[in-house]
Amino acid sequence: MDILVVGSVALDSIQTPSGKREEVLGGSATYFSIAASFFNKVDIIATVGEDFPKNYITLFKNRKIGTSGLEICKGKTFRWKGVYSDDLNTAHTIYTHLNVFKDFKPEVPRNLRNSEFIFLANIDPDLQYDVLRQVKKPRLVACDSMNYWIEHKRDALERLLDKVDILLLNDAEARQFSGESNIMKAAKLIVSRGPKAVVIKRGEHGVLCFSKDSYFAAPAYPLGSVFDPTGAGDTFAGGMMGFLSRAKKINDSSIRKGIIYGSIMASFAVEDFSVNKLLEISLNDIAGRFNHFKRITRF
Amino acid sequence: MDILVVGSVALDSIQTPSGKREEVLGGSATYFSIAASFFNKVDIIATVGEDFPKNYITLFKNRKIGTSGLEICKGKTFRWKGVYSDDLNTAHTIYTHLNVFKDFKPEVPRNLRNSEFIFLANIDPDLQYDVLRQVKKPRLVACDSMNYWIEHKRDALERLLDKVDILLLNDAEARQFSGESNIMKAAKLIVSRGPKAVVIKRGEHGVLCFSKDSYFAAPAYPLGSVFDPTGAGDTFAGGMMGFLSRAKKINDSSIRKGIIYGSIMASFAVEDFSVNKLLEISLNDIAGRFNHFKRITRF
Repeated sequence: MDILVVGSVALDSIQTPSGKREEVLGGSATYFSIAASFFNKVDIIATVGEDFPKNYITLFKNRKIGTSGLEICKGKTFRWKGVYSDDLNTAHTIYTHLNVFKDFKPEVPRNLRNSEFIFLANIDPDLQYDVLRQVKKPRLVACDSMNYWIEHKRDALERLLDKVDILLLNDAEARQFSGESNIMKAAKLIVSRGPKAVVIKRGEHGVLCFSKDSYFAAPAYPLGSVFDPTGAGDTFAGGMMGFLSRAKKINDSSIRKGIIYGSIMASFAVEDFSVNKLLEISLNDIAGRFNHFKRITRF
Repeated sequence: MDILVVGSVALDSIQTPSGKREEVLGGSATYFSIAASFFNKVDIIATVGEDFPKNYITLFKNRKIGTSGLEICKGKTFRWKGVYSDDLNTAHTIYTHLNVFKDFKPEVPRNLRNSEFIFLANIDPDLQYDVLRQVKKPRLVACDSMNYWIEHKRDALERLLDKVDILLLNDAEARQFSGESNIMKAAKLIVSRGPKAVVIKRGEHGVLCFSKDSYFAAPAYPLGSVFDPTGAGDTFAGGMMGFLSRAKKINDSSIRKGIIYGSIMASFAVEDFSVNKLLEISLNDIAGRFNHFKRITRF
């Protein structure tokens, strides 16, 4: 039941109302894999430069996150710098240096081609498709995307969606992809294009999940303070896929629980910069928030 | 267990992306009382002008909504005209003609002073206070307010809050009242100022409820189309108070159910202009959505 993630491993410089950090560990594959590692074995397909700090590789290894697919290339690691608005709802990008990520051609090592749970983090849909081509018989494929690909690589994205079980988008992306402003109509249209389910992430407003014959709505886990929202969506996906990789069956019921575990992992992630909080918590902390989540939503 | 509402009865002219209506029945006390009338006997304290259509009075009477406190004054009825944005999130006011509402001094008729469930719809907090002074021993007082009173009549609002059990606000009002941008912190501060609970209405994002020792989060009931959001908040309050007036106990559990019934009543209200949809539905329709709400939130 191994989990495979393709995405970015990056060095982030971040400023939020709570403070700032320079060149800390970031990237979609990083957040995803650390969240998923609480539940199962995860392997990363990504690329970093020769300047990537060795202690971060050690960090992955200590969490039993497989790095055989993490290529170390000549050049520098992907870097992003962003400043968040006071309400944390928007990130203003100061710079994006793709560096070695610019020529990223994901190669799935032979021993990982039997991976059953695949997460295609937000990269060029042609690369996402290429990864799927390399894996043999995935049991569950989840995929993230963004406004840029919806606008500029629509055809590639549509081709991919036919092979995706769960598509993750935020509100605005779902509206953009579907051309529908009503989120129910938007979701229905997306599900008609291939994915079995679409999970719509709404940040502090929670998550909606639509499939052909089910609908699920969950609020966000309540937090008294948010330090840094970077990586929340990928952490969510890591919690969800991690839980699903341990579930007996992939069905409406386990997807709902997966969404709650995803929300909980994201709620931890945003409580500190980078992946710091995720490295501090235990399975007990996760179980505690799961039980609390039940209590605060019961009626 | 009678319910009493003080607020406005108005003639609304409304334009939304779905169409427009001229001088249709509106006002906070109208939406509240029609929603609450599915659960219990309601009485209105409000004022209208001599031009108020008789068939609207008949409409109230047919639903056993008491109109002994609905004063018909010399002059014209309160009128509001608004145009909604394409996403229905903001209403641009074309005009507000207070007319007879300008000199509204709520008088609670003697036979209604024993009312146990009081809803103070959004009017001047001094008038809301005055109504409370006239009722003898209310079992539950809920209160709505708005940015204008928070800014201009802060002291009057604070004096009132001491006598309020449930305060209803939207996100922005909760942040404005508390000066806190984090909604959890905002809610905690509000609850420390008097009300036993604060219910934060977030429109399509659902409802949060905070009290000293409990927290509840509910998504909104999913709708494929929204015709007219006018009155959604007051309809919500009507459903909530209606349900609570029938509950054996007022406690965390019944307030949660009340919030769900409120959300359901609001979900009907926005599916047509004015109160049209509320006049069409049955208790069966409400029970159907309640069961559906359970199914779509269970995990």
